[in-house]
Amino acid sequence: MAAATTTNTAAARLLASAGGSLTLYTSRICPFAQRTTIALHDLGLIDAIEPTPTNPNGASLVEIDLANKPEWYTATINPRGKVPALKLGSGGPILIESALIAEYLYQAAGRTDRLLTNPEDAHTRYAASRVTEAINDAFVPAFYALLREHDTEQQPAATAKLLSAVHDVGAVLDAEGPYAVGSEWSVADTLAAPFLARLVVLKHYRGFDLKDASTARDENSARFVRWATALLEREAVKQTTAPAESLVVAYAKYAGPPRV
Amino acid sequence: MAAATTTNTAAARLLASAGGSLTLYTSRICPFAQRTTIALHDLGLIDAIEPTPTNPNGASLVEIDLANKPEWYTATINPRGKVPALKLGSGGPILIESALIAEYLYQAAGRTDRLLTNPEDAHTRYAASRVTEAINDAFVPAFYALLREHDTEQQPAATAKLLSAVHDVGAVLDAEGPYAVGSEWSVADTLAAPFLARLVVLKHYRGFDLKDASTARDENSARFVRWATALLEREAVKQTTAPAESLVVAYAKYAGPPRV
Repeated sequence: MAAATTTNTAAARLLASAGGSLTLYTSRICPFAQRTTIALHDLGLIDAIEPTPTNPNGASLVEIDLANKPEWYTATINPRGKVPALKLGSGGPILIESALIAEYLYQAAGRTDRLLTNPEDAHTRYAASRVTEAINDAFVPAFYALLREHDTEQQPAATAKLLSAVHDVGAVLDAEGPYAVGSEWSVADTLAAPFLARLVVLKHYRGFDLKDASTARDENSARFVRWATALLEREAVKQTTAPAESLVVAYAKYAGPPRV
Repeated sequence: MAAATTTNTAAARLLASAGGSLTLYTSRICPFAQRTTIALHDLGLIDAIEPTPTNPNGASLVEIDLANKPEWYTATINPRGKVPALKLGSGGPILIESALIAEYLYQAAGRTDRLLTNPEDAHTRYAASRVTEAINDAFVPAFYALLREHDTEQQPAATAKLLSAVHDVGAVLDAEGPYAVGSEWSVADTLAAPFLARLVVLKHYRGFDLKDASTARDENSARFVRWATALLEREAVKQTTAPAESLVVAYAKYAGPPRV
């Protein structure tokens, strides 16, 4: 009950800040877009990622087909042509960039606990920012580099780089967990989870299994594996992750045909 | 009087959060390091960038010679070997990365007004983040690209790219100014100012004059010029900027000999 009340108050506050309605232009395939659907689910504004909202008081989702992007999207919504974009109210303004949209949603909803922006949370927010930095600067580039590596002779080196990134992220995670900075979910988890939810694609195309990292007797990598497990069990992540088969199909353009 | 009291309260709060003392490893040449000295000055914790503190109740500065980096620095303070790094208390922890340190300082000091992290500031914080993103992703790379362009035939193209970045940053600045998001100084100004304070180096080596951008009848670029002027007039920026001659000497390694 307490949690539900908190969520409803936060959702109402966010909708008031946004001029009464929220329209998210998104793609269920895109990890950056999922950062924002996780935040919306976490705030009680969507129940799933169906374009037809199942929550009548929530946000509207508009699915953009990235493989066949409509002209009106770049012309009228986001000149950069990327998802996500968030329209506030019926006539704008339109916000872009996944991390900025997720932060806006939490902040406008008054969820400073998720953002860790209260003065007494300064050390914890620093820790959260280090995790986000490691995901953005180490893990994500290594993830895409392995996915794009078609040369089987080069794939072991790309795999080693990804395992090295896993180690580096693990080094800045909270020692106890299970979430990035401790027992409570924070924006660092929201921003990282979509990439962990797409490891299934690397498993399919490159045989990469995160579990292999945990068999190494390496405390940092073990932390990462425990963290990834906790994120993927979270309802906001489960309900906003597209089925594995559709992710595999969508990522074929990077990865080429599945390995035999 | 009111401002001084605010600053003193903020400084006391920050020092308490940091375990009683703050030691900043910095370089007066480095723009990233200056982001943190601006924040410290803004919070009343330093009066200048002299290694010997002139403010007995403030932060200690340790100048690191980047051209001749001491081994102990990478070994014991920042494994990345970069400045700035901030040691809290007498025994750590040590924080790294300029933007994260500046944000930590403001947050621990309770200056949510500088960070714009209160729920009612969600739209303004989004605007501030867009300015920081444009500085980091457009202006800074174009700045260094022009500085490093030794080929005089290629310099006009590099200059054009920098002017294009100036235009892009101007597009996300507040229309009224004079600061990034309006009449009040914010973290977006703190993070941008050191790069504007180094335009003197581009003037010296490449003949680049920001004023040329304002003569173009382009509202976005004119906004940028007005903003740059306001930032460079700010006491926290003036007192933390190294003399122009020393910046010119330090940047010779990028730019080569001065133009005749």
